Amino acid sequence: MNLEAQWVVGFTDGEGCFHVGMAKHAEMTMGIQVLPELTIVQHERDVKVLHALKQFFSCGVVRRNHGDRMCWRVRRIEHLRDFILPFFDAHPLKTGKLQDYAAFRRVVLMMSEGRHLTAEGVQEIRKIAERMNRGRGDGEGKVKSSCS
Amino acid sequence: MNLEAQWVVGFTDGEGCFHVGMAKHAEMTMGIQVLPELTIVQHERDVKVLHALKQFFSCGVVRRNHGDRMCWRVRRIEHLRDFILPFFDAHPLKTGKLQDYAAFRRVVLMMSEGRHLTAEGVQEIRKIAERMNRGRGDGEGKVKSSCS
Repeated sequence: MNLEAQWVVGFTDGEGCFHVGMAKHAEMTMGIQVLPELTIVQHERDVKVLHALKQFFSCGVVRRNHGDRMCWRVRRIEHLRDFILPFFDAHPLKTGKLQDYAAFRRVVLMMSEGRHLTAEGVQEIRKIAERMNRGRGDGEGKVKSSCS
Repeated sequence: MNLEAQWVVGFTDGEGCFHVGMAKHAEMTMGIQVLPELTIVQHERDVKVLHALKQFFSCGVVRRNHGDRMCWRVRRIEHLRDFILPFFDAHPLKTGKLQDYAAFRRVVLMMSEGRHLTAEGVQEIRKIAERMNRGRGDGEGKVKSSCS
């Protein structure tokens, strides 16, 4: 299946999730693991679209997400920096996910420079990650990102 | 906001819903109202994308769906036939929604020929509509279409 760039942008505007996870991790330099990832989840009947995305971007993995849902996921920082960012810089998203992407982009570039290995860097990334979720609040006390 | 055709296809593959509603309606010729509609629902923050779709297709309405959700919706049979079908015939969907679209297309064309005004036509449309939902079953006894 051949994908055109604008189809990929439209599908990501609909189904894509730019997420920055933060987890406590004793073995990490700052005790915090920063995990940016781009994920697209589909029903297993549409797994061929996920494989087409993997091929289009030359990166990521196709995995079972949960139940009958499969996902294409990119986590490797070099792949996010070298394949994902250049594409979405050249082909901007059209929905509110553009803001998520801008924050995500900043985190990926900071990590590429090793800034997640400093206390200041982790602090800044944490603020960006929190804002990504808080900004998409869907109701009182509920946190919702573009990933749901 | 200018939309490119492939962006519209990708976004519809992600967010679009081709649905054929059937409702009892005493005033209709066969006692049944057939209601095909294309709907795209978005959070209200992305209402500008819905207006861009309305402009792109030169049809449909942008309305509040429920709560903080807005939708762009096309119901008029002439608009479905003259604007929506020619576009998706020329620019095929890439996900399983292509099958929904094929069934939807058939119903719209039957209605354009007035076949929903005959007992045989209504019977055939009912079968198509049931298959559209049943085919996307997500688990035992659960009916799920691409609209959820």
